[in-house]
Amino acid sequence: MRDVFQQELAEVQERLIAISELVAISIENAVRAFNESDVSVAEEVIENDVRIDELTVALDELAINILARQQPVARDLRIVVSALRISSSLERMGDMAEHIAQLARYRFPERAVPKGLRSTFAEMGRLDVEIAKKLTQLLRTQDVRLAEEIRNEDDKIDELHVSVFDKVLGETWKGKPLATVDATLASRYHERFADHAVSIAKKVQYLATGEWIPETDLP
Amino acid sequence: MRDVFQQELAEVQERLIAISELVAISIENAVRAFNESDVSVAEEVIENDVRIDELTVALDELAINILARQQPVARDLRIVVSALRISSSLERMGDMAEHIAQLARYRFPERAVPKGLRSTFAEMGRLDVEIAKKLTQLLRTQDVRLAEEIRNEDDKIDELHVSVFDKVLGETWKGKPLATVDATLASRYHERFADHAVSIAKKVQYLATGEWIPETDLP
Repeated sequence: MRDVFQQELAEVQERLIAISELVAISIENAVRAFNESDVSVAEEVIENDVRIDELTVALDELAINILARQQPVARDLRIVVSALRISSSLERMGDMAEHIAQLARYRFPERAVPKGLRSTFAEMGRLDVEIAKKLTQLLRTQDVRLAEEIRNEDDKIDELHVSVFDKVLGETWKGKPLATVDATLASRYHERFADHAVSIAKKVQYLATGEWIPETDLP
Repeated sequence: MRDVFQQELAEVQERLIAISELVAISIENAVRAFNESDVSVAEEVIENDVRIDELTVALDELAINILARQQPVARDLRIVVSALRISSSLERMGDMAEHIAQLARYRFPERAVPKGLRSTFAEMGRLDVEIAKKLTQLLRTQDVRLAEEIRNEDDKIDELHVSVFDKVLGETWKGKPLATVDATLASRYHERFADHAVSIAKKVQYLATGEWIPETDLP
């Protein structure tokens, strides 16, 4: 019984890693679609999100199934409950990537990235991709140093998020309302993507160290 | 044992109702703070959110505790898992109310509501408050007609959300970048608030009817 349970936990972990890998591909493509106005890559992201959604639903069903059959307690129970929450955050990360891709698609053949903010969004995108890759690694290895790195990169994204508003509300901003709207939404999506990664990283850190962090301490 | 479990489920339901009531107070105050630039009401909302966060953490602990001690299966298990998800959505609704209140506070003594959009935001706010109250009723009575009403009101909010962008991107828009940013963020927060309510309503509907709706079918 115990072995079956361990096998099932390993299956849950494998599936979380697989979803995280898809999310990393999604954000990498979304960032490229957004920064380079590549509408066919944007459409790939939108299709990929359907797959991410299906996989998270299937994972949730597996987790509920494990709860029903194995009736885990204590730490084992928290592992399964955490998996449900991690799955939900990964699903939202996929949604953020999709939203970024949709901005690229809506504005095509124009560029979605507002002038004057290209390097800022290039950097935010690079950090989001980096975070997604580290998150996959973290889920795979449970190496908590990666959780720390993800938090540091999230701090950088938060600074860039603030800098977008400084720019848009500054005296030199010549953008039309469309550029202002796009900058606002794109920046928020990039920032939320990283927030969800931090939220997952904290849960993995808990699983590795036993220190439980309430959901609401998350950004 | 069975009776204890039923009592504990009743306790979970009572707590969800209590949190939902606080969320309804938060959104009502947030909408008032935002529309009337009332900074002291905005601060109440921000304080109230700390309480909402505490209560959702406590509820999550209770739910995990019930899973560990009662080891529910089948429908009972799904009730407890749904409670965890409902709690998470209520927590996010509280966050959206807080974000709306913060816009009011940041812009004070200026008005956060952009000119030309006062009636739109008044209507979005009215609908969000209506939805929050119906959600509390739904959690209390499990009357699924309320779920339907919440979905209809969410549709109206979605239309208003689109109309905000039509306005901001239209030729008559004279707003400065700050007004454009505020309109974009405020509209998104109002819309997300309602989305989370629809997500909860679907779960309650499932609990009442037995028809399970995957998380990702949600808006």
